[in-house]
Amino acid sequence: MYDIIMKKRNGGELSEEEIRFFIEGYTKGEIPDYQVSSLMMAIYFRKMTEKETLALTLAMAESGDFLDLSGIKGIKVDKHSTGGVGDKTSLALAPLVSACGVPIAKMSGRGLGHTGGTIDKLESFPGFSTAISNETFIDNVNNIGIAIMGQTADLAPADKKLYALRDVTATVDNMSLIASSIMSKKLAAGADAIVLDVKTGSGAFMKTEEDSFALAEEMVKIGKNAGRKMSAVISDMDQPLGRAVGNAIEVREAIDMLNGKGPSDFTELVYTLGTRMLILGGKASNESDARNKLVKAVSDGSALNRLAQFVKAQGGDDKYVYEPDRLKLATIVTDIISPQDGYISHIDCEEIGICSLMLGGGRETKESEIDLSVGLLLDKKTGDMVKKGDKIATVYSSDENKTGPVIERFLKAYHFSSEKCEKQKLIKGII
Amino acid sequence: MYDIIMKKRNGGELSEEEIRFFIEGYTKGEIPDYQVSSLMMAIYFRKMTEKETLALTLAMAESGDFLDLSGIKGIKVDKHSTGGVGDKTSLALAPLVSACGVPIAKMSGRGLGHTGGTIDKLESFPGFSTAISNETFIDNVNNIGIAIMGQTADLAPADKKLYALRDVTATVDNMSLIASSIMSKKLAAGADAIVLDVKTGSGAFMKTEEDSFALAEEMVKIGKNAGRKMSAVISDMDQPLGRAVGNAIEVREAIDMLNGKGPSDFTELVYTLGTRMLILGGKASNESDARNKLVKAVSDGSALNRLAQFVKAQGGDDKYVYEPDRLKLATIVTDIISPQDGYISHIDCEEIGICSLMLGGGRETKESEIDLSVGLLLDKKTGDMVKKGDKIATVYSSDENKTGPVIERFLKAYHFSSEKCEKQKLIKGII
Repeated sequence: MYDIIMKKRNGGELSEEEIRFFIEGYTKGEIPDYQVSSLMMAIYFRKMTEKETLALTLAMAESGDFLDLSGIKGIKVDKHSTGGVGDKTSLALAPLVSACGVPIAKMSGRGLGHTGGTIDKLESFPGFSTAISNETFIDNVNNIGIAIMGQTADLAPADKKLYALRDVTATVDNMSLIASSIMSKKLAAGADAIVLDVKTGSGAFMKTEEDSFALAEEMVKIGKNAGRKMSAVISDMDQPLGRAVGNAIEVREAIDMLNGKGPSDFTELVYTLGTRMLILGGKASNESDARNKLVKAVSDGSALNRLAQFVKAQGGDDKYVYEPDRLKLATIVTDIISPQDGYISHIDCEEIGICSLMLGGGRETKESEIDLSVGLLLDKKTGDMVKKGDKIATVYSSDENKTGPVIERFLKAYHFSSEKCEKQKLIKGII
Repeated sequence: MYDIIMKKRNGGELSEEEIRFFIEGYTKGEIPDYQVSSLMMAIYFRKMTEKETLALTLAMAESGDFLDLSGIKGIKVDKHSTGGVGDKTSLALAPLVSACGVPIAKMSGRGLGHTGGTIDKLESFPGFSTAISNETFIDNVNNIGIAIMGQTADLAPADKKLYALRDVTATVDNMSLIASSIMSKKLAAGADAIVLDVKTGSGAFMKTEEDSFALAEEMVKIGKNAGRKMSAVISDMDQPLGRAVGNAIEVREAIDMLNGKGPSDFTELVYTLGTRMLILGGKASNESDARNKLVKAVSDGSALNRLAQFVKAQGGDDKYVYEPDRLKLATIVTDIISPQDGYISHIDCEEIGICSLMLGGGRETKESEIDLSVGLLLDKKTGDMVKKGDKIATVYSSDENKTGPVIERFLKAYHFSSEKCEKQKLIKGII
């Protein structure tokens, strides 16, 4: 291990064997944290070549279970978002592309964040569970075209251990390391094709477009080198996606989208990602073909029906899909009123996420309980004109004492200008 | 700690408080190894400023005991060598400068290496001990002008812990870190002035003159910034110093030197370092004055007498000083014969050290027992002409089975040329 650190420190390229030796030794606890953290810092400064990055990703992917989806017919397409505020994309996208014929066999996590993960949000449907057996998972995909499973498998444990170490040693910020961390889990999850939604802006992990494109390119390269079909969409996260931020409230918005009534930015993102998924999944020959199929699946109700089938198949009550008002929202409802006239010039996106967290809609630690009913609904976003006294958002709170501080923080995140401001461009690029 | 790593990683300058926080926390075990090793790697790449280096050195120096030598009259001058093969300099230098009026209050270690440390070598005198009390130490310096104590005090424990970590994380090679490691212990040892012997070449820690000068300058800067008088000599270690490599055999050579019969290179180094010590100690006004005093102390026997007084005061038999043939050498004595005619063009100096280690003259681990009687005596060095069949060295071994492999290794370290070769220049520079 000493020689490996020294080689990287001096700018050398690590061989596949060296990378595998280090990842296997570290996973088994034979190589100590302090050697790995110094290697990570050397990598921060020296970077990694394409070959090294691929070797690292594969070694981490193979450090635990490797999902076998060969029992599922067709080209399995997975989707991954780097995360953001109000990102309920999977909730609408998965049933929509499934309705268009792409088998969706997705493994999802809970994780920490401003709101819950996809699994938490889906649990807004009473009875719904992702704790299903491997057999049920495969059967459901084959029979109804979609299943989502909680991350029970031991996916890429090396990545988990390495990320925790990088997190406390200031060695997170390296494109190759970030890309290999994400891709190791995606490769282990077994899909044939992967569409990435790489977020960019104040509410995203990557704050600049330059970094977001670089990360997207790095991940696409890894995936292709590992023999998967790949595409990436770089999308705006300089303000929350859509209007809803929370859990049940985001599920409602996803259902709105499948009913053809979603906010335009959210709808556009779902169609853009869906287009890539249909093409990679061999269910559309080109972009306009793909988009026509997606629009049709919304307008003929087949996408919504697919969501209902999926919810029912995993123990949930499908009445909630057709009557989304049944999805319980918190009862202390308070309007947030604009304090002035003007145009909204910028939103500190991450702050809106923190408002959701303050209401109890996310996890601060692994042990936190999520209140699925709380959230925010935005009426005004960047570029909109407001008058003093206009409602700019609504807070759904379960605790009166939390509402005040949330409104205060929310208003600080909204910046006003007397000049007209441009609307945010949603899709920054497609790879 | 995370913020400190991040700041250094991004090229910032750490404040005195930040450095103190990290060293204190690490010494107490509150900051984990894995954060410190990533900081060390960041320092490797970003380097440290003069201010940071001083702060680190002082923080480490103050992490344990700080010797109080105020009970000793006069300017206390310490000497430090970065180490090499056949480096018995202190054995002759300490009594010599003491005889010229500079009080020598030295703390010495055993350490690992090709031969023992100064303390091990001194134990060749039957009865001699460095396990003396603080009071005896101070009294001896005041009464006879010299005392050497084993490193019983807890000197710079932060350095010890940090060095052990750097050693296994490929973060040793940074001038500021190397300099602060050495200087933290020297500052804690309490002398008013410090003369450094920085070795350069194939048998030294620093292989190139450039690095050796850089390290010397860095250490002189730290010492001066910490208020000490400083000087450094950069001296050759591309071949062993003098002729003797071992323990008792090196003591014999040191006594030869004090009798005016030492090898010329070793004698010259002792005089050069002694000159700096006399000037810093205020016992000579200039170089020629200093050298005259040193030469006189050798020729009138006062330096040898001082060694005898010192050995006696610490329990040793001073007859051995006047009759050095009493110092026991191993009895299996074998000549190493030149396999060819030619000039000696180069010696792999470190290999000669390893020959001594193979004979049992050094420690491979902290627990190893040293055989003080074994060693090598070189007859030919770089630049010398030899004929096939000439003796080039003698091996003193306690074990017949070890002699053969040592001779084989020894001969591989000697390189011959048919062209005349230049003698090695001993003193590369003085700061």
